[in-house]
Amino acid sequence: MIIVMQKNASREAAEDVARRVEEQGLKPHLIFGEERTVVAVVGDDRQKDREVFESCPGVDKVVPILAEYKIASRETKQEPTVIQTHDLIMGNGHVGIIAGPCSVESETQILETAKAVKAAGARGLRGGAFKPRTSPYSFQGMKEEGLKLLALAREQTGLAVVTEVMTPHHVDLVAQYADVMQIGARNMQNYHLLQAVGECNKPVMLKRGASATMDEFLLAAEYILSQGNQQVILCERGIRTFETHTRFTLPLASVPYLKSKTHLPVVIDPSHGTGHANLVGPMCAASVAVRADGLIIEVHPDPSNAMSDGAQSLTFDAFEKTMIECRKIANAIGLTMDE
Amino acid sequence: MIIVMQKNASREAAEDVARRVEEQGLKPHLIFGEERTVVAVVGDDRQKDREVFESCPGVDKVVPILAEYKIASRETKQEPTVIQTHDLIMGNGHVGIIAGPCSVESETQILETAKAVKAAGARGLRGGAFKPRTSPYSFQGMKEEGLKLLALAREQTGLAVVTEVMTPHHVDLVAQYADVMQIGARNMQNYHLLQAVGECNKPVMLKRGASATMDEFLLAAEYILSQGNQQVILCERGIRTFETHTRFTLPLASVPYLKSKTHLPVVIDPSHGTGHANLVGPMCAASVAVRADGLIIEVHPDPSNAMSDGAQSLTFDAFEKTMIECRKIANAIGLTMDE
Amino acid sequence: MIIVMQKNASREAAEDVARRVEEQGLKPHLIFGEERTVVAVVGDDRQKDREVFESCPGVDKVVPILAEYKIASRETKQEPTVIQTHDLIMGNGHVGIIAGPCSVESETQILETAKAVKAAGARGLRGGAFKPRTSPYSFQGMKEEGLKLLALAREQTGLAVVTEVMTPHHVDLVAQYADVMQIGARNMQNYHLLQAVGECNKPVMLKRGASATMDEFLLAAEYILSQGNQQVILCERGIRTFETHTRFTLPLASVPYLKSKTHLPVVIDPSHGTGHANLVGPMCAASVAVRADGLIIEVHPDPSNAMSDGAQSLTFDAFEKTMIECRKIANAIGLTMDE
Amino acid sequence: MIIVMQKNASREAAEDVARRVEEQGLKPHLIFGEERTVVAVVGDDRQKDREVFESCPGVDKVVPILAEYKIASRETKQEPTVIQTHDLIMGNGHVGIIAGPCSVESETQILETAKAVKAAGARGLRGGAFKPRTSPYSFQGMKEEGLKLLALAREQTGLAVVTEVMTPHHVDLVAQYADVMQIGARNMQNYHLLQAVGECNKPVMLKRGASATMDEFLLAAEYILSQGNQQVILCERGIRTFETHTRFTLPLASVPYLKSKTHLPVVIDPSHGTGHANLVGPMCAASVAVRADGLIIEVHPDPSNAMSDGAQSLTFDAFEKTMIECRKIANAIGLTMDE
Repeated sequence: MIIVMQKNASREAAEDVARRVEEQGLKPHLIFGEERTVVAVVGDDRQKDREVFESCPGVDKVVPILAEYKIASRETKQEPTVIQTHDLIMGNGHVGIIAGPCSVESETQILETAKAVKAAGARGLRGGAFKPRTSPYSFQGMKEEGLKLLALAREQTGLAVVTEVMTPHHVDLVAQYADVMQIGARNMQNYHLLQAVGECNKPVMLKRGASATMDEFLLAAEYILSQGNQQVILCERGIRTFETHTRFTLPLASVPYLKSKTHLPVVIDPSHGTGHANLVGPMCAASVAVRADGLIIEVHPDPSNAMSDGAQSLTFDAFEKTMIECRKIANAIGLTMDE
Repeated sequence: MIIVMQKNASREAAEDVARRVEEQGLKPHLIFGEERTVVAVVGDDRQKDREVFESCPGVDKVVPILAEYKIASRETKQEPTVIQTHDLIMGNGHVGIIAGPCSVESETQILETAKAVKAAGARGLRGGAFKPRTSPYSFQGMKEEGLKLLALAREQTGLAVVTEVMTPHHVDLVAQYADVMQIGARNMQNYHLLQAVGECNKPVMLKRGASATMDEFLLAAEYILSQGNQQVILCERGIRTFETHTRFTLPLASVPYLKSKTHLPVVIDPSHGTGHANLVGPMCAASVAVRADGLIIEVHPDPSNAMSDGAQSLTFDAFEKTMIECRKIANAIGLTMDE
Repeated sequence: MIIVMQKNASREAAEDVARRVEEQGLKPHLIFGEERTVVAVVGDDRQKDREVFESCPGVDKVVPILAEYKIASRETKQEPTVIQTHDLIMGNGHVGIIAGPCSVESETQILETAKAVKAAGARGLRGGAFKPRTSPYSFQGMKEEGLKLLALAREQTGLAVVTEVMTPHHVDLVAQYADVMQIGARNMQNYHLLQAVGECNKPVMLKRGASATMDEFLLAAEYILSQGNQQVILCERGIRTFETHTRFTLPLASVPYLKSKTHLPVVIDPSHGTGHANLVGPMCAASVAVRADGLIIEVHPDPSNAMSDGAQSLTFDAFEKTMIECRKIANAIGLTMDE
Repeated sequence: MIIVMQKNASREAAEDVARRVEEQGLKPHLIFGEERTVVAVVGDDRQKDREVFESCPGVDKVVPILAEYKIASRETKQEPTVIQTHDLIMGNGHVGIIAGPCSVESETQILETAKAVKAAGARGLRGGAFKPRTSPYSFQGMKEEGLKLLALAREQTGLAVVTEVMTPHHVDLVAQYADVMQIGARNMQNYHLLQAVGECNKPVMLKRGASATMDEFLLAAEYILSQGNQQVILCERGIRTFETHTRFTLPLASVPYLKSKTHLPVVIDPSHGTGHANLVGPMCAASVAVRADGLIIEVHPDPSNAMSDGAQSLTFDAFEKTMIECRKIANAIGLTMDE
């Protein structure tokens, strides 16, 4: 942490700040510059509330230096974490594909879709049973009935089931059926939920909140990791910006950035990240090229009759074409994708 | 909803869209323009997933017209909702002041603060007992012990207690002590939590999520209202933008906008909305001038030793000066503020 | 500037960075922390490209400390700058009001408006003669003919003329007629234009770019100031964010923030900042309460027939009511507004 | 355009709006819904100021339907535009590579770089002679001397010269030396400059403004096209969002989106789009995969001594590796890249 004094701050003010730094068990270094004095603070200040020094007399601003996450950090664990469940593998050169409808709607719908996406190369099946919906009047999911249909689809296809859990008291129920527990973007900072999935022994796919910084995203992962669950997958699904021609803005630079900071695998959700089916295919291709560890894609037998997210769902055909293009790229640059 | 066809879409494509609209129980109007055909859809389409038509052949885009909230809408209830608990009144010309520390830290801290803010004009006491913190390693609050201290402060001062509830299974516990249940910005779309507070009989202060649109904000309120709890207070606390000199960007135009759309009272949180104590006072004054129904302000006996949010907390002195300035403005434009 | 080394960077790497710092005439301080080494750089590094050190081996990131503006800084000149031209005064407790149509459309329109806004308290007349329009097919302004009409209105009312200049070779022409040269938000970083108005002897109103940070805004002002023109007025007119219910998001916290950093006066444009006439009045009131030094407001005799910006223009009546509310607030908190 | 009436608006109000629509030469369709009346407006309303109807009594909001650009639209010209100058080809399956330093700094620097990037596959040479710099105290470029060095590099390598023009009165000078005239992001809405390059007979590379919507971007192109210059290249270089770990947020979904709306070629600038050299390579790969028509990349012989943008410049080695990876992807998906 660097504490920058105001231009006209007295030497005493800087020394007073240094004294307070010491009181917190940290070590201050006073540096007297031509225009400003700064106090460089050495020591692990992660558990302190850093900005507090901003209210000391003479302080201009406080600049944090250390990121606060530890277990998630590549500095803690150099080798990449690989997540495997059933035949779905994500990480270290393996691009795992998860596909399926936004919501589970019926037995036919989910079984048909599972078969189609498996045939095209998916090894995970997505499908919402508990649906977080912006409006209380929208379809809220088939709930436990939906979970059972997902399990049936797994039985028939071998696909790993990836589905969302929305609240701590559902964690046990969802964990009975799911292979990967998904935390939605709206719940990225629902800390009781993060702790609850941190205590279960299933991989967790954590979606980035629409306005979360990278540090906040990694600290949310840290909530799960610090409970003992080391199987965390990070999912970039787009951020909220001024752009309106896409549902969210999907920043693929998150992939190399996160890989430089953490050992956790990073997957991309181009369906929510764009919101329009015609943009999903190209962004899948780009995600593979940027070396994402996986993709999660919305696919529906009949998008124009989907109960949710129809506009961004691929048809079976479009999904198959997308997989072919992605596989060409993966092969060209030495990545592995299932067929 | 307006469905805009592509320029080169055939008449048949538009008629096919119109047929699907009718299948959903809605009424289509085909309008053949010089360059485009549009299908205007009449009827209550709130429960439908509108974007689904985007995947029909020949459709360019879908433009929603009706906002989906109902109970929250000023079109449903014209007269403004006024919230009163103990002596705290918010709405219809009464500017209610809620003040107190970010976190409850000790008996002395909370009692001293309660007395000071009451003397300066506050009628509500804020204070976090359960704290949502970005990092798992930060102070997480005094929990039930903190709630008890808040209740003690109410006993001694008569201030109404405003405190956050973070997860559904804490709702009963928090409701035992709180007069206003606060839903934090990170939980604005935690739908199970919204439903849980919607079932309790205490006023709820719902904070806007950092990347929530106004429609999403009002639909989150609708989750609470639709459970039967009509006592909802909306709190604007700033949005996430590219600005970094403030913690968030605080858009005061939300006040007149929300008042044109809803009957619910609107309060402003200039502490989180700016993040810096020196900006809080001026933004309190501006909030009163723009006719907010209340303010929620962080005040601490010794901000530079606060366990959280020290940089944005006012001292007792600064709070008193702010209240004096705000009261001058309120009086000048015919609003009521307690002394 | 603080250069943060990677966790595993060698001592040699840090020393190499320190050597390069010295080569640039700056003074490095090496601080060896528990987890990281940082190099604190002392000296005026404003003319250097700071980020360059990021490409040295072992460097994690570079954190700038000093803002790069000098003449604009309050640290250079403590007393507030006051701008006066004709009877329009902005700064140091005087709230100057500039009002008028988006575009000059006709003699009748501009004269009528000038008289109406003066009667309600304005001392500056706005009106576009050269109009920057998003579309090449929109009305582009009356050009020199418009400037002449503005001058005629000044002759008849005594109002100071505030009008936009869009390109360097128009500076002389516009300066013949205008009392305040306006630089639009889209041109905030049109450096040749900034230099050109920096060489003329008229006050310049510089609008903040829709995605400009505060440092970029103050550096744009520095371009003008460093040419010798000390009469710069800063205008906050809203930033681009994810919000769509307003045209831009208008952050009033800019006023106290800018006043803590610069001596230049700060005015608010609530017309562009909100985009909707019904939000303009309340945001004018809030701007006065937050102690802005002036307001620039769009007013039109018949907004629904305006050639540009009709949706955000006030009628004469609405403007008069707004001025009455603003004056009440100004009087209550000790500011001066003309009648 | 769709005009939505307020819920409680009278039939007369809607009819009055319809009358005004007719007065503007457009055709209104009144649709009486269950809750609202809407007025659908048919006819080319591009030259009208649409929002003006928002100030009519009883109107809730105005929703535009037609984008305002014409010549840029794919509906006007279906076949993709291909830009060729010297050996640099962009469009219709050909990925053109432009590389070089941020600024021209010396003869040695530019000649060395030109040779290195050509050897790795570039066919265009970038290099700033006139530099738009945030601070007036930063290096502003070598000006005409820099242009001459670029021309010398072209003579020796055959690379096409791509360089920025900042102000209308430099257009003739820059056009003497440049093969592609670059308009920087800060000047995207500098309309006099757009018109000036629209009148010259060189290809223009127009960079997206950091807060420009897609419609604004295409309308800026339309300013150039409508002057008669049909050789416009669109360049996505990232937008300003709340993210700070990258310099800008680079949304690759712009490529398929723009290609669905316009026939103009789209190139990506991953250097400014990320701001950090270690993110540039992966984003180049992703840009090819998403089928961008070209890349513009900053390369410097010694990034840690660059006079500008050192942090985001690739070394010769890193550039060569990036080209190899990109070429593998291009070949895999049927695109052409020069060797």
